[in-house]
Amino acid sequence: MKVNGIPTRTIWSVDHGQAIGIIDQTKLPFEFKKETLRDWRQVREAIATMKVRGAPLIGIAAAWAMVLAIRDNAQDDLIHEVRSELIATRPTAVNLQWAVDHLVKKVMPLPAKDRLPVAYREAEEMTQANVLANRAIGTHGAKIIAELYAKKREPVNILTHCNAGWLATVDYGTALSAVYIAFEQGIPLHVWVDETRPREQGLLTAWELAGVGIPHTVIADNAGGHLMQHREVDAVIVGADRITAIGDVANKVGTYLKALAAKDMDVPFYVAAPSSTIDWTIQDGKHGIEIENRSGDELRFIRGLDKKGHLADIRLMDAQTNVENPAFDVTPARLVTGIITERGVCAPEFLTRLFPEGARKHARS
Amino acid sequence: MKVNGIPTRTIWSVDHGQAIGIIDQTKLPFEFKKETLRDWRQVREAIATMKVRGAPLIGIAAAWAMVLAIRDNAQDDLIHEVRSELIATRPTAVNLQWAVDHLVKKVMPLPAKDRLPVAYREAEEMTQANVLANRAIGTHGAKIIAELYAKKREPVNILTHCNAGWLATVDYGTALSAVYIAFEQGIPLHVWVDETRPREQGLLTAWELAGVGIPHTVIADNAGGHLMQHREVDAVIVGADRITAIGDVANKVGTYLKALAAKDMDVPFYVAAPSSTIDWTIQDGKHGIEIENRSGDELRFIRGLDKKGHLADIRLMDAQTNVENPAFDVTPARLVTGIITERGVCAPEFLTRLFPEGARKHARS
Repeated sequence: MKVNGIPTRTIWSVDHGQAIGIIDQTKLPFEFKKETLRDWRQVREAIATMKVRGAPLIGIAAAWAMVLAIRDNAQDDLIHEVRSELIATRPTAVNLQWAVDHLVKKVMPLPAKDRLPVAYREAEEMTQANVLANRAIGTHGAKIIAELYAKKREPVNILTHCNAGWLATVDYGTALSAVYIAFEQGIPLHVWVDETRPREQGLLTAWELAGVGIPHTVIADNAGGHLMQHREVDAVIVGADRITAIGDVANKVGTYLKALAAKDMDVPFYVAAPSSTIDWTIQDGKHGIEIENRSGDELRFIRGLDKKGHLADIRLMDAQTNVENPAFDVTPARLVTGIITERGVCAPEFLTRLFPEGARKHARS
Repeated sequence: MKVNGIPTRTIWSVDHGQAIGIIDQTKLPFEFKKETLRDWRQVREAIATMKVRGAPLIGIAAAWAMVLAIRDNAQDDLIHEVRSELIATRPTAVNLQWAVDHLVKKVMPLPAKDRLPVAYREAEEMTQANVLANRAIGTHGAKIIAELYAKKREPVNILTHCNAGWLATVDYGTALSAVYIAFEQGIPLHVWVDETRPREQGLLTAWELAGVGIPHTVIADNAGGHLMQHREVDAVIVGADRITAIGDVANKVGTYLKALAAKDMDVPFYVAAPSSTIDWTIQDGKHGIEIENRSGDELRFIRGLDKKGHLADIRLMDAQTNVENPAFDVTPARLVTGIITERGVCAPEFLTRLFPEGARKHARS
């Protein structure tokens, strides 16, 4: 997508794989700042501190981290060690594990000296594939929005939680890809943007939407139920960090609450994600998906602009205040109307039919 | 309750009704600052800006505003005008209307010159009655917590949203009154405190609980559903701004989402409120209760302490960002396990049985 008129992605190779470039998303929407990461530990740190974030993007970032690691040392031991460390950085989004394993599987059969070019090529391919998958997701998702508009003949109100936009992927996004393509097609729409405490990823979503002129309104995470009660929401579309084989969905904490309200008020609830987000090894998301607990400081402090317009972190709670900060929750498949993938939209129970090879792989394992 | 060892209420008469004292709650939990309000317009402003807040407390504050207004001018016209202005200040909490109308009804039959002492006495009585009602609510609510403990034999985990503590009333609170009394009785318990965006009234709740040493943990508003899924919540207890005759409950926005999760996970969901919160003239809360929309700046800015420990407001969004800020939502009676009143606990459908005079009054009207 464009930033100040310049086509921009969230991650790019620098000097033919000698480094990678990212946008420091912890400074957005206040400052747009690019950063160059020169070794795999810097990439891991960027993933851990959420300079890069979003399940699809951290998968791609981890793949590039593997490339940088292999550049430095392509021995088996090191590759296994880096693989484990990267996967442990953020345990909920399965894309990270998927991307790293995909790359490792490609390079391990080769002699150490031949691994780097293959790793580089694979990372490039995964990066491109993510863009294509997201574009396809958007095309399928836009059809849903078009159908809602055909029925309503008034702007379609979509509610989204967290940021599942281009910033969360290499480009286009998942949930927001559908919004972008529908908007390109001229479908009148408006997006309700959940603030998404802690970390306020809703501000990233608002920044993205403002960038292309899509009408949107930021709301507190608490407000979505009220809006659905009053028929102000035509559909909820969110991203995902992991989807189980039966369609349970781990996504940013609070998603489950919105899904409950959507069910209660008969509002369709869609999850948009590439198939790399599906974990075929798990059925029951509530018990099978590890939910990352992040630092309480994410709630104790908040970032914004002070009176002089400078980036500032202010303290809401002192260090003595107990804080619990689960970063994700699991929305059971029974609350999900449809999953929007690069291959099309399906009810959660038909995921295995849409991706028979995924289901087969699981049956084999 | 005590603040730094000194018994403190949220509102008090100064110089025998020549002014009233309040705590400026917009500065809490960062600064504890008392303020003296010398005329009714100052009180109205304190209600509008939420220096005093919480349905029971704004009712009492409005009663004192009427006293100050009558002190200055006890003519019919002025009383009616002040009455209307006060009621319009915050439309959702019915306690405000209830308190003002109660006082006006007492003084109107009297000649203007005799009105002030009666108004003063009524305001004093309402203030005392609120304390007694809250204490009774706490006693009834504590029994629920005791029963949960009797079954579980481990600390009872209570989730609460917003601040329904002593700061929201004259003293003791509503939902937290139950917690305080259970804690006094030695029942092991722990409170999950929703941050409650915007305005973070959860920080007031945490401040209250820390003041008496009750174990508690602050969570994002998004996290409660996840905790309920994982059996970390034994009961939800919240306050209310208005309860309809059939038990629909208007409370701080986000309450409905927590009630849905409680229902989905079979967690009992209680609403604690004095009977002055019941609006006998309304059945259907979703259509009958006016939901106050507050300024988007409540989301655009947030207050905390800067690096030097000074109170600071930082900007999260610029003025161009559209924000919608409904302050309340309505939880339908079907999601409410019980309503805890000064007369005892009942299922929402039995409110009219617990308060037959309320139902009669409505039938007459």
